[in-house]
Amino acid sequence: QKDKDYILMVDWREAEKAVKAGKAKRYSGIPVIDPAKAPGVAFFMPLAKSPHGVDVSPSGRWIIGSGKLSPTTTVFDIEKVKKAIREKDYEDTIDGIPVLTYTSVREAEIPVGLGPLHTQFDGRGYAYTSLFVESAVAKWKLPPYDEGADMNQYVVDKIPVAYNIGHLVTAEGDSREPDGNYLVALNKLSKGRHLNVGPSIPESAQLIDITGDKMKLLYDAFTEPEPHYAVMIKADKLNPIEVYKKDDPERPKNPDAIWSADEAKIVRRGRTVEVWMMAVRTFFAPDVIRANKGDKVIVHLTNIEQTRDELHGFAINDYNINLVVDPGETKTVTFKAKKPGVYAFYCTNFCSALHQEMQGYLLVKP
Amino acid sequence: QKDKDYILMVDWREAEKAVKAGKAKRYSGIPVIDPAKAPGVAFFMPLAKSPHGVDVSPSGRWIIGSGKLSPTTTVFDIEKVKKAIREKDYEDTIDGIPVLTYTSVREAEIPVGLGPLHTQFDGRGYAYTSLFVESAVAKWKLPPYDEGADMNQYVVDKIPVAYNIGHLVTAEGDSREPDGNYLVALNKLSKGRHLNVGPSIPESAQLIDITGDKMKLLYDAFTEPEPHYAVMIKADKLNPIEVYKKDDPERPKNPDAIWSADEAKIVRRGRTVEVWMMAVRTFFAPDVIRANKGDKVIVHLTNIEQTRDELHGFAINDYNINLVVDPGETKTVTFKAKKPGVYAFYCTNFCSALHQEMQGYLLVKP
Repeated sequence: QKDKDYILMVDWREAEKAVKAGKAKRYSGIPVIDPAKAPGVAFFMPLAKSPHGVDVSPSGRWIIGSGKLSPTTTVFDIEKVKKAIREKDYEDTIDGIPVLTYTSVREAEIPVGLGPLHTQFDGRGYAYTSLFVESAVAKWKLPPYDEGADMNQYVVDKIPVAYNIGHLVTAEGDSREPDGNYLVALNKLSKGRHLNVGPSIPESAQLIDITGDKMKLLYDAFTEPEPHYAVMIKADKLNPIEVYKKDDPERPKNPDAIWSADEAKIVRRGRTVEVWMMAVRTFFAPDVIRANKGDKVIVHLTNIEQTRDELHGFAINDYNINLVVDPGETKTVTFKAKKPGVYAFYCTNFCSALHQEMQGYLLVKP
Repeated sequence: QKDKDYILMVDWREAEKAVKAGKAKRYSGIPVIDPAKAPGVAFFMPLAKSPHGVDVSPSGRWIIGSGKLSPTTTVFDIEKVKKAIREKDYEDTIDGIPVLTYTSVREAEIPVGLGPLHTQFDGRGYAYTSLFVESAVAKWKLPPYDEGADMNQYVVDKIPVAYNIGHLVTAEGDSREPDGNYLVALNKLSKGRHLNVGPSIPESAQLIDITGDKMKLLYDAFTEPEPHYAVMIKADKLNPIEVYKKDDPERPKNPDAIWSADEAKIVRRGRTVEVWMMAVRTFFAPDVIRANKGDKVIVHLTNIEQTRDELHGFAINDYNINLVVDPGETKTVTFKAKKPGVYAFYCTNFCSALHQEMQGYLLVKP
């Protein structure tokens, strides 16, 4: 087989033009271009075998392509790519798609280490490539490079991670202005990292400080297997609500919400018992629900708290019910009162020193 | 109301004698003693209101009782308790149960801080009490104390935790020989600890180094709410298996286990399709299952790996099936082939660089 695979580059402005010029066929309404019939839309760029990540530097100039089976990662220059396209500098054609001449578009091959996969950036001219086989992260310098220099000198640091790192993410590393302080290694396994806790071993991600010359491991956090692509952004870009506000003009009111014990009520219609209940530190109102065996019971529970992190739970153990209701939120649960008896319902989310007293009863007549 | 609550002490040797002497009544087969009718079995010991933890020091001599509504924790001396019982040194009797004279059994009241709940030990003569209201852990010295000393001097350190700590645990802190190196604060909430991520905020436990004079926060780990009582033991006390061994004389063989692709088979009986399948890096055998719409499909999947952490998954997305199978384990899933079509099944637990190629097909004829 061949010693190279390819990156497929798409010129999306040309693709847009090709669609407008009627060069696309529609499949299920989606315009599909055959690049062989729309010259200028797609190009192949040769790369080491089994490529994974293709990442673009913050400046937009350097394209980093990693072929897993090569111990190097390749830097392409977008300016050289444009020139090669302009000058039709092709080394081959595959399925009607031109292959750009590798030596014309490649800026450098960086000897980062074994099994390079994905690359992130710090905004200070450095790139960070995950090494799947080596279980490490390599830090290396982006261009320019000295003429004829030994490329090894540009790989400036390496930190081991545990184990088989796949993706990695630097803070705002996919933007024009990376934050440059932190990197998280998203490891696929955790060999050698944890004590033996039996056949199924927890996986972990690792937080690394990238502010200095040397990368520094700060923290391990357990994760669900298998961590994949992620983006890390600065906290001040998000402004989530802290509670569901009682009167929020931007949010539709839940018609079943109630906001005081006075509004609490139980309405029976035939075999249906409908309950409008509120929860607050530290009681439910109403705190007794009466039903007959076989009744359908509907509970609308509003947590009337307006304080951050003041969640309440509502559990009926023998009915396998456990709601968690955020501050200001209303949730509804419907169940059949199949089992006769006296069943405690109680708060399952610690709410105050009197949490354990927050309970009531479901009474089901045989 | 009264200004004290009580610890109920049970002399279990006396209780055993009382049962043997026929002083117990049986309810559902369980012998129940009325302590009023069996003198010497139970005693009340007065304590600050709303008591939580009652913990015994490694030597067995000091009983630490914390009443949540007092800013002190109380040290009782088991020798003084025994003496008071011998001498019938009672200050009251409640429901026929003698109340030991508080000033006779109390060794000291330690001004640990607000909302003391539970106490753990380090084996070097210090105790660690969780402070629910103060959101802190207090480190204090166990007896002996100087005559007439200001007790504040024995509270030697305090570390803030976030937030509303309930239980806490030191390494082997419930044993005669605590390890003395680490403490975990099991916090009920996390106010002020995390960035705002919306109404439901993650809770965390905190790992604290207790080897020095000053306690030192080492690590935050996210936990499910609400963390409760826990025990921390040394890792070398456990020796869990790393894989389910193929030939383990101590474990019954799963009759549906297979250990090679040669043993893989599919058997149809009427409307039932039964599959004995194996998984190994990086294929399933068999990798095609044929069924007719409405058939019952039974898959017995053995992960024949004998390497640590080499789990395989088996998912059929449209059938909402996702098994995770430990190395050497056999799991069975049964489902009805309700939907006709071609459905990929694939490994869902990263297993090697060829993980994504580990797949097969379920073909369901209409």
